[in-house]
Amino acid sequence: MLPPDGSLLRIFVGESDKYEKQPLYEWIVIQARAQGLAGATVLRGLMGFGANTRVIHSFKIERLSEDLPIIIELVDTTAKLETFLSFVEQRLQSDLLATMEVVQVRSHRGDKS
Amino acid sequence: MLPPDGSLLRIFVGESDKYEKQPLYEWIVIQARAQGLAGATVLRGLMGFGANTRVIHSFKIERLSEDLPIIIELVDTTAKLETFLSFVEQRLQSDLLATMEVVQVRSHRGDKS
Amino acid sequence: MLPPDGSLLRIFVGESDKYEKQPLYEWIVIQARAQGLAGATVLRGLMGFGANTRVIHSFKIERLSEDLPIIIELVDTTAKLETFLSFVEQRLQSDLLATMEVVQVRSHRGDKS
Repeated sequence: MLPPDGSLLRIFVGESDKYEKQPLYEWIVIQARAQGLAGATVLRGLMGFGANTRVIHSFKIERLSEDLPIIIELVDTTAKLETFLSFVEQRLQSDLLATMEVVQVRSHRGDKS
Repeated sequence: MLPPDGSLLRIFVGESDKYEKQPLYEWIVIQARAQGLAGATVLRGLMGFGANTRVIHSFKIERLSEDLPIIIELVDTTAKLETFLSFVEQRLQSDLLATMEVVQVRSHRGDKS
Repeated sequence: MLPPDGSLLRIFVGESDKYEKQPLYEWIVIQARAQGLAGATVLRGLMGFGANTRVIHSFKIERLSEDLPIIIELVDTTAKLETFLSFVEQRLQSDLLATMEVVQVRSHRGDKS
């Protein structure tokens, strides 16, 4: 069970970013699962810039379509998410653009009161 | 008009979850509309785990592609969103994984000051 | 470098909204880039309502599929995002439905401490 005070960690990468020949976002989700985080969702943007690039990437511009923005959303306690982000950055030997937000987790699962 | 202090309720389901033969996310959006919530957006993830499953679902893994993660985002006042979530959980006779966040609503619509 | 206390501005539009014959979401991202905001991501929903319409738009309903919900997410300091939103609303001569949230920016880029 998650405590009610959780956090949402959002990591911003590009679709073409790799780690050991694997898409970086896939590797991050597999690591998150292995470390028992509560949930992960990968969202792909239509268009964007930031993170690793100041170029606008868009599904409408052929030349750039190979690097659409990806957001990896992870939900758990703040402490577990901090540890996870440090672990990922250490493995990548690189910092990631990420945001952390406080969220209230509303699952009552297993709570029959 | 929405008051400036609103909330964002995010409900996490799977694409294949159903309620009365209808995709669960569709049913939730229709209920949100019927109850007059200010806004709803359904996002589909490329990959994820959590909510109802500890298995990683991914659009790249054939076998699992039928249950991609879905996030339903609802914006309104905290009170209306709390009432809405309770209503949905009662109808489903099941709890949902959801997060609630405080957001400032910036629409000035109809406000000519 | 972004300061650690940032904000996330989310602007809700429809996919068919235009500004000077260009999709509105594209125009907003190009303006955000021109004004040096830290990051932008455009997400398209499968289904939704709100913002400019009380009709539910869904990729499954042919008739309405031309106006799927679009969320434009912008990350920077609160002050820069406020200025940006005012600029956009002035150019459009119309208010937008938007939410602003406090986020902690976790990029350590260039910070070797």
